[in-house]
Amino acid sequence: MGIMRLGRVQLRCHNWEKSVEYYKKVIGLVETARDENHVYLKAWDEYDHHSVILEKSDSAGLDHLALKVKDEADLDYYEQKLIEYGVQVTRTPAGMRIAEGEAVRFQLPTGQYMELYHQIEVVGNGLPLTNPDPWPDGLVGIHPPRLDHLLISGEDVEGTTKLLQEVFGFGMSEKVLLDDGESMLATWLFVTNTAHDIAVIKGPNAGVHHVAFYLDEWNDIRKAADIMGKNHVSIDIGPTRHGITRGTTIYFFDPSGNRNEVFCGGYITYADFPTITWTFDSLGAAIFYYNKELNERFTSVFS
Amino acid sequence: MGIMRLGRVQLRCHNWEKSVEYYKKVIGLVETARDENHVYLKAWDEYDHHSVILEKSDSAGLDHLALKVKDEADLDYYEQKLIEYGVQVTRTPAGMRIAEGEAVRFQLPTGQYMELYHQIEVVGNGLPLTNPDPWPDGLVGIHPPRLDHLLISGEDVEGTTKLLQEVFGFGMSEKVLLDDGESMLATWLFVTNTAHDIAVIKGPNAGVHHVAFYLDEWNDIRKAADIMGKNHVSIDIGPTRHGITRGTTIYFFDPSGNRNEVFCGGYITYADFPTITWTFDSLGAAIFYYNKELNERFTSVFS
Amino acid sequence: MGIMRLGRVQLRCHNWEKSVEYYKKVIGLVETARDENHVYLKAWDEYDHHSVILEKSDSAGLDHLALKVKDEADLDYYEQKLIEYGVQVTRTPAGMRIAEGEAVRFQLPTGQYMELYHQIEVVGNGLPLTNPDPWPDGLVGIHPPRLDHLLISGEDVEGTTKLLQEVFGFGMSEKVLLDDGESMLATWLFVTNTAHDIAVIKGPNAGVHHVAFYLDEWNDIRKAADIMGKNHVSIDIGPTRHGITRGTTIYFFDPSGNRNEVFCGGYITYADFPTITWTFDSLGAAIFYYNKELNERFTSVFS
Amino acid sequence: MGIMRLGRVQLRCHNWEKSVEYYKKVIGLVETARDENHVYLKAWDEYDHHSVILEKSDSAGLDHLALKVKDEADLDYYEQKLIEYGVQVTRTPAGMRIAEGEAVRFQLPTGQYMELYHQIEVVGNGLPLTNPDPWPDGLVGIHPPRLDHLLISGEDVEGTTKLLQEVFGFGMSEKVLLDDGESMLATWLFVTNTAHDIAVIKGPNAGVHHVAFYLDEWNDIRKAADIMGKNHVSIDIGPTRHGITRGTTIYFFDPSGNRNEVFCGGYITYADFPTITWTFDSLGAAIFYYNKELNERFTSVFS
Repeated sequence: MGIMRLGRVQLRCHNWEKSVEYYKKVIGLVETARDENHVYLKAWDEYDHHSVILEKSDSAGLDHLALKVKDEADLDYYEQKLIEYGVQVTRTPAGMRIAEGEAVRFQLPTGQYMELYHQIEVVGNGLPLTNPDPWPDGLVGIHPPRLDHLLISGEDVEGTTKLLQEVFGFGMSEKVLLDDGESMLATWLFVTNTAHDIAVIKGPNAGVHHVAFYLDEWNDIRKAADIMGKNHVSIDIGPTRHGITRGTTIYFFDPSGNRNEVFCGGYITYADFPTITWTFDSLGAAIFYYNKELNERFTSVFS
Repeated sequence: MGIMRLGRVQLRCHNWEKSVEYYKKVIGLVETARDENHVYLKAWDEYDHHSVILEKSDSAGLDHLALKVKDEADLDYYEQKLIEYGVQVTRTPAGMRIAEGEAVRFQLPTGQYMELYHQIEVVGNGLPLTNPDPWPDGLVGIHPPRLDHLLISGEDVEGTTKLLQEVFGFGMSEKVLLDDGESMLATWLFVTNTAHDIAVIKGPNAGVHHVAFYLDEWNDIRKAADIMGKNHVSIDIGPTRHGITRGTTIYFFDPSGNRNEVFCGGYITYADFPTITWTFDSLGAAIFYYNKELNERFTSVFS
Repeated sequence: MGIMRLGRVQLRCHNWEKSVEYYKKVIGLVETARDENHVYLKAWDEYDHHSVILEKSDSAGLDHLALKVKDEADLDYYEQKLIEYGVQVTRTPAGMRIAEGEAVRFQLPTGQYMELYHQIEVVGNGLPLTNPDPWPDGLVGIHPPRLDHLLISGEDVEGTTKLLQEVFGFGMSEKVLLDDGESMLATWLFVTNTAHDIAVIKGPNAGVHHVAFYLDEWNDIRKAADIMGKNHVSIDIGPTRHGITRGTTIYFFDPSGNRNEVFCGGYITYADFPTITWTFDSLGAAIFYYNKELNERFTSVFS
Repeated sequence: MGIMRLGRVQLRCHNWEKSVEYYKKVIGLVETARDENHVYLKAWDEYDHHSVILEKSDSAGLDHLALKVKDEADLDYYEQKLIEYGVQVTRTPAGMRIAEGEAVRFQLPTGQYMELYHQIEVVGNGLPLTNPDPWPDGLVGIHPPRLDHLLISGEDVEGTTKLLQEVFGFGMSEKVLLDDGESMLATWLFVTNTAHDIAVIKGPNAGVHHVAFYLDEWNDIRKAADIMGKNHVSIDIGPTRHGITRGTTIYFFDPSGNRNEVFCGGYITYADFPTITWTFDSLGAAIFYYNKELNERFTSVFS
């Protein structure tokens, strides 16, 4: 029983055709379904039907994020825990989204809607389950193997952090303290063995700072930057390295203004991982280890 | 509650001084303690006191392997599960090994001794927990960040596999079938999100085929091979890639004849990972994807 | 005035259709022309019309190799030098091969035919000469940027080495001595700033041990090996590193049995580069630095 | 006969102790000699006594650059050519600098002093010339294998470019045009097979924009950036990729304010390399291919 992973994000896009093409051709996600206002996408090495849903909208932003739980019974279990924790819960019926079963839905203290789900159609990763090659033919663009994490924003960083820790068992790998040396500017939280599955930062409620896709190696970061350069993608910053998580990174924007990240590396975490603390005066190095300076855009643009 | 990771292996070494020097200077592990017949070592990015214990002996081989559990209470919980499963269990008292607490000890169907433990002294990874750099100064040799997995051998591959699945909740990422298309030559098992924490293969009972250390990138594999070349380490095979797990790899021997591996990459696993099957006629590609040929040494030398 | 580079190799292929497809789809060379018995190919980042000509034949082997000279006047200059050196020279008329001008033709002491040429049609590298991207779209297979070097065989290693040094100004970067500590098993010769443009080894006269294509990075070596694995290319050895030149490498065979190499790295050379010497007892490390063992195939198969 | 390479740069440093320590510990150059006001340094894989001379001064800047010629007789040859070209020439006597022979000295139209030399003591690269390993032990810091190129500034870009082409036989790999579409903002010039040995840009006369050290791979760029981060080196920009030369790069400053670069990759050039042209409106992509924006500092800080 338990939380398996960050399974899905649903992003709003106002620059619709260009955004869909970008996620398919530049990011290199695979389209698995679409309806009038949505395109369903998966990263190539994911087995489930989709991990990213694009939603036609008149603004950018995050519609919701969703955690996949290990068993169908976990829905009841966590629904009960949420209610006991004082959170209002609803159910999203099976079939409301393509290829998905029922989900438990609630709002985080920072304003985002989060869902828990277990049932989703399995479509595979393009390789046979018997004697597979290490990667399939026909991959295009950056083609990250999987969705990695997202950074959400809101006023109540402590509230969302605490809920994820106490209800779902997330650990905290890192935190950045505010000037007062006590309250938290941001937290990095894991429920798998990665450096973070969800991070939370002070900022506009219900906001999203970025959605990150995983890359295996620093060379893939360069290849991704090459592809961005060839496609005139708007780069926020990078390639560089984070002090936090040690990951290497590029931040960039989709055609609707949602910030994306390609993220690589980072340490492994376990339940006994000690939380790393960054003081406010080291914020530059925490975020961008090489030049140790935050850019204006990085700290002010959320969607 | 649950299993956290493969926390420790204890290896027997008969070529004692050379073996200790090799694990410290060539592999680049950090010595944290020693007594008359043992040297305690950790990989640089591990926080616990040790993950490898070398034992002075008159032969090579595996003394035992150990899983770290999430809570002290897990010891009782798994002890009870093991007894119900029909396994005889003993307790290793706290302090029997340096810096360790009490452990639950039992024998796998393939003959190896396995322990479960929770308490162990924390010594850190050489970096501060506040505003750390991405890596410490003074690393030497190959310096893998951590112990990754091991491959143990025995007659009853099915037995050990089943025990790890049913008692400890391991998933099976991959398996190789024998000629009959049914029984298992080998299985790859995970309890973290890695491609494997423990693998099991037909071979001598209580045997160990290799102990693997993790490397972050293919470039680290080359650097490792360079260091092996400079130090005249006996290389079994590699650099190459496995079909199984997709990992890149070098197999090589410590001065006592224990096979080591540096392992890099491999996919991420979750509870819903579908088992990949390799048929016997694809065994070559399964083990060494590039030239698709097993060497004699690889299939016959265990310690 | 002077020699510009190894401009061309013409290889005989008996397994014709498969060989042509292999050089185009697996190696990823670009076809620029063909006639009844020849296919003309270039590596993507070469500007000239072709660097590899495949010749339909009933055996494998090297038809000839050719050096591109800096000026048309160099043809007369080197023709004269060759005659003075005692070498018989003929002229290959312009147009005898597609897109080529006149060439000076002669035989090396090790039996291979070598040509000198200057005129060849320029077709470009697929990128514009104004504001180009770093690489073009549509590359397939391994797609090395360029032909790098070849290793030819014969009895008179000293003779070919001396001719290349004295007539064309090649420098010697490395040599391997025979058991007697004096005579040369092999030499590595450069006329550009690379570690070698042509190497010569004891073996069958007029033979070729391998033709090598350049790759930029060790990660490209892995990608190349992946593509070989996916295409069931017959790998001789590698990925590994040479002691000689320090280059990283894979040796493998085309469908006709000609050995190919992908070669990466190696130091830079200049006219003042001191020759590095390998003694016969270090031959293993000289060729394959990691495991320091020659395989039977490597030393016995020439085409 | 001819030019062999950019052999030497002499840089002025006002922050003397810190600058010397930086070039030795952070860049990882090897000190081979010093006198009261100079420290002589070489990159590890260079054979000559030095390639960088630091000069104690009260400002930053370039004292001179020097080309190593193939033969002692080239000094007379090029002296004569320079005089015929209308350049005033002097001789620097042997022994005026440690380990150096006589040099021909003159001023470039952009104001820098350039020397030609042949004689210099050979100290080797730390590896034996018989059976060497691929790299020596004991390397520290970034340890580039060699000096690569420099970018000098002045009003008369065309003048210096023409002199280097006509007197010394440099080729032009790339150029950036000014707004008028005709006159040259900058040129990239090669005399070896690299993408550039010397580049020239509009700016203060006798100025230097940066001195670049070579790195073999993109992974070395990250390692270099890590070392800069750990040592709080002032980074100008990067890691990123140039449109020009395709090279990957970091620009950063020594403690005296001289800009350094670590440069990796770039294509191979030959005498027949076609000049690539960048138009003024593509200047951003030409310099920094990924985000296609010049920063203020990059275009205004020279030393």
